[in-house]
Amino acid sequence: MNQQLEHKRHTLAHLLAAAVVEQYPHAKLTLGPAIDTGFYYDIDFSAGTAPGEDDLKSIQKGMKKQINKWTQWSHEEVSADVARERFAGNQFKLELIDEIENKVEKITLYTCGDFTDLCRGGHVDNPKKDISMDAFKLDKIAGAYWRGDEKNPMLTRIYGIAFDTKDELVAYELQLAEAKKRDHRKIGKELDLFTFSELVGPGLPLFTPKGTMMRDLVVDKIMQIQAKYGYQKVTIPHITKSDLYKTSGHWEKFGDELFKVKGQSDAEFVMKPMNCPHHTQIFASKPRTYKELPIRYAETTMVYRDEQAGELIGLGRVRSITQDDGHAFCTFDQIDQEVEAIVQVIKAFYKTLGMYEEGKFWVSLSVSDPSNPDGYLGDPEKWGQAESMLEDVAKRLELPYKRVEGEAAFYGPKLDFMFYDAIGRERQLATAQLDFVMPERFGLEYVDNEGNKQTPVMIHRAIAGSLERFMAIMIEHFAGNFPLWLSPEQIAVIPVAEAHNEYAQGVHEQLVAAGFRSQIDTDNDSMGKKVRTAKKAKLPYFLIIGDTDIANNTVTVESRDTGESIAMSVADLLAKLADEANV
Amino acid sequence: MNQQLEHKRHTLAHLLAAAVVEQYPHAKLTLGPAIDTGFYYDIDFSAGTAPGEDDLKSIQKGMKKQINKWTQWSHEEVSADVARERFAGNQFKLELIDEIENKVEKITLYTCGDFTDLCRGGHVDNPKKDISMDAFKLDKIAGAYWRGDEKNPMLTRIYGIAFDTKDELVAYELQLAEAKKRDHRKIGKELDLFTFSELVGPGLPLFTPKGTMMRDLVVDKIMQIQAKYGYQKVTIPHITKSDLYKTSGHWEKFGDELFKVKGQSDAEFVMKPMNCPHHTQIFASKPRTYKELPIRYAETTMVYRDEQAGELIGLGRVRSITQDDGHAFCTFDQIDQEVEAIVQVIKAFYKTLGMYEEGKFWVSLSVSDPSNPDGYLGDPEKWGQAESMLEDVAKRLELPYKRVEGEAAFYGPKLDFMFYDAIGRERQLATAQLDFVMPERFGLEYVDNEGNKQTPVMIHRAIAGSLERFMAIMIEHFAGNFPLWLSPEQIAVIPVAEAHNEYAQGVHEQLVAAGFRSQIDTDNDSMGKKVRTAKKAKLPYFLIIGDTDIANNTVTVESRDTGESIAMSVADLLAKLADEANV
Repeated sequence: MNQQLEHKRHTLAHLLAAAVVEQYPHAKLTLGPAIDTGFYYDIDFSAGTAPGEDDLKSIQKGMKKQINKWTQWSHEEVSADVARERFAGNQFKLELIDEIENKVEKITLYTCGDFTDLCRGGHVDNPKKDISMDAFKLDKIAGAYWRGDEKNPMLTRIYGIAFDTKDELVAYELQLAEAKKRDHRKIGKELDLFTFSELVGPGLPLFTPKGTMMRDLVVDKIMQIQAKYGYQKVTIPHITKSDLYKTSGHWEKFGDELFKVKGQSDAEFVMKPMNCPHHTQIFASKPRTYKELPIRYAETTMVYRDEQAGELIGLGRVRSITQDDGHAFCTFDQIDQEVEAIVQVIKAFYKTLGMYEEGKFWVSLSVSDPSNPDGYLGDPEKWGQAESMLEDVAKRLELPYKRVEGEAAFYGPKLDFMFYDAIGRERQLATAQLDFVMPERFGLEYVDNEGNKQTPVMIHRAIAGSLERFMAIMIEHFAGNFPLWLSPEQIAVIPVAEAHNEYAQGVHEQLVAAGFRSQIDTDNDSMGKKVRTAKKAKLPYFLIIGDTDIANNTVTVESRDTGESIAMSVADLLAKLADEANV
Repeated sequence: MNQQLEHKRHTLAHLLAAAVVEQYPHAKLTLGPAIDTGFYYDIDFSAGTAPGEDDLKSIQKGMKKQINKWTQWSHEEVSADVARERFAGNQFKLELIDEIENKVEKITLYTCGDFTDLCRGGHVDNPKKDISMDAFKLDKIAGAYWRGDEKNPMLTRIYGIAFDTKDELVAYELQLAEAKKRDHRKIGKELDLFTFSELVGPGLPLFTPKGTMMRDLVVDKIMQIQAKYGYQKVTIPHITKSDLYKTSGHWEKFGDELFKVKGQSDAEFVMKPMNCPHHTQIFASKPRTYKELPIRYAETTMVYRDEQAGELIGLGRVRSITQDDGHAFCTFDQIDQEVEAIVQVIKAFYKTLGMYEEGKFWVSLSVSDPSNPDGYLGDPEKWGQAESMLEDVAKRLELPYKRVEGEAAFYGPKLDFMFYDAIGRERQLATAQLDFVMPERFGLEYVDNEGNKQTPVMIHRAIAGSLERFMAIMIEHFAGNFPLWLSPEQIAVIPVAEAHNEYAQGVHEQLVAAGFRSQIDTDNDSMGKKVRTAKKAKLPYFLIIGDTDIANNTVTVESRDTGESIAMSVADLLAKLADEANV
């Protein structure tokens, strides 16, 4: 967000706190930052009653009243002792003051209207004039642990949404309402794609047959597209001795997010948070020559990261993350061809979803920050060459790319693909990342055509990214109305009455024989109920089979997306489906 | 083994100890049991020199000398104090004596010849007469921790092999030599199927592209065979809160073998040692009616068990175990049809390997032990009915079965399939197990056709069992000469000279287009070297392409198995291959 908007939101957090304290004098304030879509303030109401969502209107009214006096800010720098006196009785602010004191930083108090708060600054100059009071709204209340730690007291978090203009607020609220309808947790349950079990634990989804089918369809599609680029499947275990990550450097990098594994022996095992270090060990399992390169490994496998329980959201963020991972080991000169191959796979894959279209995505050419040359490992000259190679590929393949300095990983530059979903949210999905560091750390080698030992370059690539997150995004993007190839169930064959069952069965069998996922509903339910069941399951097509169909040797095809019913021969239907499925 | 043979082997362990103590007076004896193929004795030589494999001859000579005096046994029951006095200075025996005393069991000493040992008995009456001294052999020496615990002192384990007759010993030694040639660790490396990394750790194999291809071929074959029986793929994470296993009862059962997982929170996670509890949670994710049953889940997924480091052998015993697991949830009346379906899949699958043939396998109908009715959970009447159902299936499908009482699991009876490999070793592979316990523990339910809640029966089934162990057994069974469908690389196309490359390329492309795993070797190597490379990789077929082939529009097909070379058209070759691959 731009800085002015951030300042508005931060100012509104102060204003919220002022209105709360006026109406709930027992409230103890803690922290209240600006966030992506507005602001929040975490407040301790344990000394009295706490507001509910019904009280937000009244607090908002209080804010609107107070802002009339909020025309300018004053601030003062105080000693820690003075600050402690001012916030006596508020253990949260006292903890913050101690921390600032320990870091030997300035302690500042900011005042606007009649309200003063411990604050670092960053407000709009004249809130009354600068903030459009119909462009914000108190949104919801949630519980939040002090500093996000579940061992700490639970506070009340009051959220507000805020934009520059009322139109933007309304647009955002519409997006939010649409997002709620499309929530993958809701649709995922309706479509019976996945489930969670309290016995298994949070962040560990279990995929039903339909959900597993969707995952497999995605993986198969990617494997099929990339087959011609020479990727080979490999298989690794989900744990390793910690030695592997001490060598790769991930031991430090992942820290607390690593799940540690303990057996009967003293050996220290870890669940893998990524696959690249394991894959290097397959590369390293025998001597390699330049003739074998590029060697490309692909594997769809779960990695494990101990995300905070509070941050787990359906499939959007999980602890068991299935990556459609791939690693190419190649010579420096092969970077260009390998990255091009990866981009071709990304292009072909997202085209099948209608997402690789002008205006629907952009590519971040994430390069090093020239003002921070020490932030990157490896030879600067090679970095420059590699960045040019990536840019050449981007130009050659006419990618809508932006060069973003400072966005490279410390181990290499990369191409990140950002797609806009159906309601305009930006989602980072596919990526191709060069890596000059890991091959060296593991001492990977090949013999070049002059008999000298060389270190290969490693390219990390993901097409769908995490299958869980990908599935969440697809459910929300399509609101569950998946394209034909991605639909776990494609066609329902519905005989109008028992007399039509035999003919319907024949049609169903022809569809299955042709490789389509067809189901036949010969239950004794009414046709209306059968059609409603098929519609609820969001099947792309359902065929109503009645007397006319049998008489004319046709089927009546109703499309989920167009709502049209058209009679056609089975042969024509098969051709139409084949055409649509092979996007 | 029969009891008399076990007694011979146990007696030989005593004799070994006697000969060792004579030649190494500082040796401290610990434990020496009979085992599957002979016996061993674990001995502490830390007070002086220890024997090496070169010394086994001399020890064996000592045994042969002593046995002349071993014509009868005497034994005495002694108090713990007397026993302690007899074994003063031998901390191992003293530890055993303490244990026997704590369990309030008898302490007995057995003497034969001049040698006395702490022992529970179980010997042949007259060793000199009963034991054929040319039917045993000291075999090898290995290190072994006292009581298998790596925190304890390392002892010297001396192994002997022993049979009733010399002929049996020789046959076993021949089998051993053949087994050595077929060792899957050796062939697996030669064929580049899998590898281990010191950084990743023991018991955690990494599968190369070729090894992964083999795994996938096995899984695909099983999925393809069982598709018509309605199994649906599901997907679960590899960890769970321990609650799941506390509910299932595995928490106690697996004990130390469970890998515990620790994240940043206090939650107690575990790596799954099996999949059934997770699968129950998918069943339980929504209400079920009798109309939906049977519900059948299949998943090929890794489970983790912390096997002792010393017991890990290549792929034969690993810590990351890939199970081709399946679970059917059905009504009691559906047991018969479901077990039959599983047996049909087993039959079809092992037929493709030539292993489901008369005399090459038998089936254990593992039922409850009528003398131990308390050893089994569930209604005895239902057990009786279920055992009859299994036996009916066995009869109907003409399985070569034996009813083995007492071999049932505590939760239900089962059918275990035992196959003999190419060198006569018995391998338990497939299984179908009824389970009356787990559905109840998890409170699984379905509504029957009268609207009443019922508990389903669960059937656990494995076709290949652990993919790692299966691969190890297949490598050794076929000595790496896999049948066409299981060969990761099927055909090498070898042009005699550069002039034949183009034609060879065309043949290669036709093979690939027809779905065969063909490779073309257009390196500048000599044809002899190319053929040797293909032979070393044990490809089922290689095609030598020369002038005559081009002139006659044929290919010369050499078979790995028959050694024959036959010229034929590509069309004929494709037909022949298709016929062979679709076994």
